[in-house]
Amino acid sequence: MSEHPRTVPTADDLGRTWAALREQSPLVQCLTNVVATQRTADVLLAAGASPAMVASPREADEFARVAGAVLINLGTPYEESTEGKRAAVAAAREVGTPWVLDPVAAGGLTWRTEIARELLAQRPAVVRGNASEILGLAGGRGGRGADSAHSPDEALETARQLSHEYATVVALSGPIDHLVHGDRLVRLAHGHDFLTRVTAIGCSLGALIAACCAVTEDPLTAAATGTAALTLAAEDAARTARGPGSFAAVLLDELALLEPGAIATRAEVG
Amino acid sequence: MSEHPRTVPTADDLGRTWAALREQSPLVQCLTNVVATQRTADVLLAAGASPAMVASPREADEFARVAGAVLINLGTPYEESTEGKRAAVAAAREVGTPWVLDPVAAGGLTWRTEIARELLAQRPAVVRGNASEILGLAGGRGGRGADSAHSPDEALETARQLSHEYATVVALSGPIDHLVHGDRLVRLAHGHDFLTRVTAIGCSLGALIAACCAVTEDPLTAAATGTAALTLAAEDAARTARGPGSFAAVLLDELALLEPGAIATRAEVG
Amino acid sequence: MSEHPRTVPTADDLGRTWAALREQSPLVQCLTNVVATQRTADVLLAAGASPAMVASPREADEFARVAGAVLINLGTPYEESTEGKRAAVAAAREVGTPWVLDPVAAGGLTWRTEIARELLAQRPAVVRGNASEILGLAGGRGGRGADSAHSPDEALETARQLSHEYATVVALSGPIDHLVHGDRLVRLAHGHDFLTRVTAIGCSLGALIAACCAVTEDPLTAAATGTAALTLAAEDAARTARGPGSFAAVLLDELALLEPGAIATRAEVG
Repeated sequence: MSEHPRTVPTADDLGRTWAALREQSPLVQCLTNVVATQRTADVLLAAGASPAMVASPREADEFARVAGAVLINLGTPYEESTEGKRAAVAAAREVGTPWVLDPVAAGGLTWRTEIARELLAQRPAVVRGNASEILGLAGGRGGRGADSAHSPDEALETARQLSHEYATVVALSGPIDHLVHGDRLVRLAHGHDFLTRVTAIGCSLGALIAACCAVTEDPLTAAATGTAALTLAAEDAARTARGPGSFAAVLLDELALLEPGAIATRAEVG
Repeated sequence: MSEHPRTVPTADDLGRTWAALREQSPLVQCLTNVVATQRTADVLLAAGASPAMVASPREADEFARVAGAVLINLGTPYEESTEGKRAAVAAAREVGTPWVLDPVAAGGLTWRTEIARELLAQRPAVVRGNASEILGLAGGRGGRGADSAHSPDEALETARQLSHEYATVVALSGPIDHLVHGDRLVRLAHGHDFLTRVTAIGCSLGALIAACCAVTEDPLTAAATGTAALTLAAEDAARTARGPGSFAAVLLDELALLEPGAIATRAEVG
Repeated sequence: MSEHPRTVPTADDLGRTWAALREQSPLVQCLTNVVATQRTADVLLAAGASPAMVASPREADEFARVAGAVLINLGTPYEESTEGKRAAVAAAREVGTPWVLDPVAAGGLTWRTEIARELLAQRPAVVRGNASEILGLAGGRGGRGADSAHSPDEALETARQLSHEYATVVALSGPIDHLVHGDRLVRLAHGHDFLTRVTAIGCSLGALIAACCAVTEDPLTAAATGTAALTLAAEDAARTARGPGSFAAVLLDELALLEPGAIATRAEVG
């Protein structure tokens, strides 16, 4: 990981990355699950990125060569869409497109755990998951469905090992987000409980991190920017939302309204 | 059906079941159509359940063994997802996981009518559908798409026959919901016209009934609790919604805010 | 194209077509992409139409024979769903059901460009796309994903050629919508920038145009009515929306509240 900075990104770095995302509107190819697809695209559009859900094995590699970044989310796997994911990863590696792996429910279900480990070996720029998924990816039992049965602290040591072994950032989501890159660690504690009552929020975070990977060389900065943006927007949205339904709508508004300066001022990078 | 109560559930029973759902947050495996998947997950999360859309034939049976309940919804069938449904039902039967069958557009389309009848023979805890779908399941012509071309009254006698023959609860959705279990009948007349202007509401009701099946032994109580919760939340949402878009968002808020005591007080179980 | 009117539709014609859609609630079969499916169904329900997402090759032709109109949207193509689209088009042609082609990302991806051209040769009533997609359909390079890299003006001449060659209406979406039918041209300049920040809006417009095709003989009037309704509702929604999330919800409200008289009064048909 010698090519990356030795210091952790500052709140100013996060603000600058968010500004770059707004300016460049990167093309983000999302190969994601059928539950998350609309919300993921809505989140990327609200943030200012340009989503494209190109997932067929007949098209995935062609598109991964022109995309700014690729998201590989393992929820609701099918034979054909799984082939598409393999094709997209191979093409992304070949041309150097950064890609993010979201190993949904790894450790909890046999087939997708195998796929997750196979793809992890292809060295994604970032792996994003909850504690159970990160533990499951490393050989643990995993959680139930998309929910986590473990705390981020339990998984932190495992995340460090995975990061070293695969030269990847591990973005461990939870009440406190732990973003690990070798010996570098960023902690962020923004957000709101409503985030756990809306489907596909974690999946959308993976996509947002991919979008940030398209505009910064440092994947740890990308993971931190995406995480800070979504969780700060969630704090804003929670001020007016009465429940998870209005929260989901207002979250998109706040994400669109979130200024780079607000991230630089408000993000408490620990 | 001797193992079930001879009396119909009271509003208090419904409130207690809703409280149990909130406490236990059951894991509900949903094998549903691609139109309904995000909204179904949002409804379950708002209600306090834990959705998992595990649908591949490579994973469906593995997960049905650990889920609290399974929803099988026949909209947008494909070869692979249909195999997943068969696998989930087989595993659910084997280990005794309760499951709900939603025979979308049965009677109106040949292939899915065959699948619906094949799965009905596997004895779901609850069958949920509109009048046309219930008539179609029993051999009638069915309606057009997800809409019903028949009134619940027409289908009530058919529902009784299906319930007796397959030892299942038949939840007949409509302006008045008729929930039939052998000779037991629960009628509920809550709700609002906006429910028919938002996609996947009926599908989401099937999932909510499945969630309730995970926390009560009596499938009639489960069907009545899910139906009462959704339709009472709809009445609340309609007070502030200007149209179907805001209604869909506020419905989730109200579902999250709906207290067990409110169900016990307001549900008019006829 | 001698069977169609020689004059372009007036705002009054659009209002009358919208009224007909409300009265007849046509059954619209949508074979669309997995990103757009929920929002497309929500838009059709809000407008007063009756959506049915019947897409399997085992069911698509059976349903296309009874539907009022069919939408074929080429986003997220898979082998099985692509076969379903071919089957629906063949059945629609056989019985005369009008159908709309939305060639998502044509010109930008090889496989779907081939499918788009194959289906175009089957003569849809309307082709709806952005400038890049229309150029791509005619042999140009196309845009990136669902976004357009070209202006409608560049594509206008190409749209005219396609319209003459395939006897189809070409609905060219953009800040100014250009609707071309041979030598007839309708321009509409309603709408709001928020429309580009919500996913699947273009896809939903294709579905709305299909719904209008079910209630008027003239596909240019259908394309103009669907376009005017969505863009006028967008203007109404933008007055209260704070961002793309609330806009998406309020847009559905406004679509449901939009009166035929408002279209007749406000649509500036150029």
